[in-house]
Amino acid sequence: MASDAPAAEVRPSHGRVRAVDVAAAAGVSISTVSLVVNDKWEGRVAPDTAARVRSEVLRLGYVVDESARRLATGDAGAIAVVSPAFTNPFYAQVALGAAAVLGDRYQVVFSVTEVGDGPAATMRGLWGMRLAGALVAAPSPDLLSLLPSELPVVLLDAPGADPAHLRVDLDVAGGSVQLGRHLLELGHRRVVYVDALPDSDTFRIRREALAAALTAGGAELVCEPRLVSAVDIGAAHAVASAVLHGPLLDGVTAVVGATDIHALAVLRVFAAAGRSVPGDVSVAGFDDQPLSAYVTPSLTTVALPATDLGVAAATALAEVLADRERPTAARRAGARRDPVTVLPVTLTVRDSTGPARC
Amino acid sequence: MASDAPAAEVRPSHGRVRAVDVAAAAGVSISTVSLVVNDKWEGRVAPDTAARVRSEVLRLGYVVDESARRLATGDAGAIAVVSPAFTNPFYAQVALGAAAVLGDRYQVVFSVTEVGDGPAATMRGLWGMRLAGALVAAPSPDLLSLLPSELPVVLLDAPGADPAHLRVDLDVAGGSVQLGRHLLELGHRRVVYVDALPDSDTFRIRREALAAALTAGGAELVCEPRLVSAVDIGAAHAVASAVLHGPLLDGVTAVVGATDIHALAVLRVFAAAGRSVPGDVSVAGFDDQPLSAYVTPSLTTVALPATDLGVAAATALAEVLADRERPTAARRAGARRDPVTVLPVTLTVRDSTGPARC
Repeated sequence: MASDAPAAEVRPSHGRVRAVDVAAAAGVSISTVSLVVNDKWEGRVAPDTAARVRSEVLRLGYVVDESARRLATGDAGAIAVVSPAFTNPFYAQVALGAAAVLGDRYQVVFSVTEVGDGPAATMRGLWGMRLAGALVAAPSPDLLSLLPSELPVVLLDAPGADPAHLRVDLDVAGGSVQLGRHLLELGHRRVVYVDALPDSDTFRIRREALAAALTAGGAELVCEPRLVSAVDIGAAHAVASAVLHGPLLDGVTAVVGATDIHALAVLRVFAAAGRSVPGDVSVAGFDDQPLSAYVTPSLTTVALPATDLGVAAATALAEVLADRERPTAARRAGARRDPVTVLPVTLTVRDSTGPARC
Repeated sequence: MASDAPAAEVRPSHGRVRAVDVAAAAGVSISTVSLVVNDKWEGRVAPDTAARVRSEVLRLGYVVDESARRLATGDAGAIAVVSPAFTNPFYAQVALGAAAVLGDRYQVVFSVTEVGDGPAATMRGLWGMRLAGALVAAPSPDLLSLLPSELPVVLLDAPGADPAHLRVDLDVAGGSVQLGRHLLELGHRRVVYVDALPDSDTFRIRREALAAALTAGGAELVCEPRLVSAVDIGAAHAVASAVLHGPLLDGVTAVVGATDIHALAVLRVFAAAGRSVPGDVSVAGFDDQPLSAYVTPSLTTVALPATDLGVAAATALAEVLADRERPTAARRAGARRDPVTVLPVTLTVRDSTGPARC
């Protein structure tokens, strides 16, 4: 396949348009051409000058010489973001945060894996590319055991992982406690939980910490019958409607979803059943997806800082990668960095929670 | 960076655990081990046998030899999915469709680009990887002009592109006509449009075909004041609330968003304003995102077949890639395939549209 790889130069070298040709045609310096073609011109080059450069780039058919560009920018391969739920918008925000840190130097890509793809399929993905490193979110134990030891990896939201791995966690337990106290203050005493698959540590901790907080306040997290689905709106809706469409279980006044997707499915079930939220029953989730503030009623949720998570994990990975470029004796990132960073998590109260109905 | 690439073998070769060792320990054939570690066992290997193999894989520390595996599976690099709006869930569905076709042989990755990233930044991404090909959705003219001529590319939903490009389009014009007729039948005569950025051909055609269909029926698509935002719920909500929160423009009984994101923002504005949908005003969008069926009211939308789009484009790309492996004289995909495939599009009527209020 080598002959089909993207060409560094797509024109014959004798006729190749160079940056200096564009610069001459546009009446600017070569560095101005470089800023414009690399999208780094804003605040540095006047908009009309940038437009003139782009126009000459198109007219002359200038294509950046990849090997020259890579030398100049130090571009060093791809960083893969691996998540257990490719279609969960939460991870898109994480990936954008990572790209904000690493995107200038590395190409950040999001591994496309089906919900339910096994760890071996995911690993096949990691190995199929010229990878400089990976950010692996909420991994299952199987996936952790398959990570190649020489690939620089930072784990995200992986509270149960071996501390030998560099990782950035979210204080999901703290968020669960905040949500539990909020529900207790509103007078809720029996709360149904809709859980998420796969059964990763982050989901286990959300459930257990919420149950503990409610129990400490004399209330109860109802886990029987056990409601659980993949992080998929259709699957979550099917599970929720089977149990929640009819009369509520005795004394239940609130429902919490392990993700906003689950909570949004519950909102839909109650709307279809003619049950008022939060008048008849309160609903809350975890994540704070972009849409969660814009549904009606807007969703109370334990806001997990997706962008910050991507930024922090990417920053840790960048340190590891920079360290690897030093002589062995001068390496230090592993020694000086605490392997685990924990980001705070904040309950965002919106319209979907209210006083428990008497 | 070569020394930091993922290792094909992470153990010293003299002590390396091989598939035959796992097979012996688990009492199965080598091909059974291969099926299990490549996640291809279901329906072929008994679940308890697969569990035993996995257990031995973990116990012995078996790691698949990447070069051997690549020889066996023909894994041939990465296919990038490039979209103008990374966080739009529509494109996640497209990528999953592409992975269903190409995922066995290629690693399918989703290029992480910010809304508003320029074409040069996107191209940097394409060149930064060992790419076998790319699927490029709704490209701007600038991006099209920068595509390297030797990279196998299939365009998606790019109706205005040069027909020299292989592409799979959606009949968005046909979908717009269906939506226009639906609104006419319900008695709507003045319809406000909330448009999307960037100003790609697919968005232009949605707007123009809807306007034409309404005009043909004696109605009007109101485009002044011009409402337009990026495909981002916060941006769409800001634009929509500025104009739609107060009294509706004279005679307006319906609002159409260029994407479901825009339509969901409009639903939110009307809910906050105490306006009933569809009692007071109807709302519709384009896409049929996973959540659009589960909001209240559920959203009438021109359903664009995201998964089918990914499947069709990936199938076309697979043909091109297979053809490139043939001797030059035997190549034929370019000759035998119509360069443009158009997928049908269907209006999905849900609860957000109803009779125009008199």
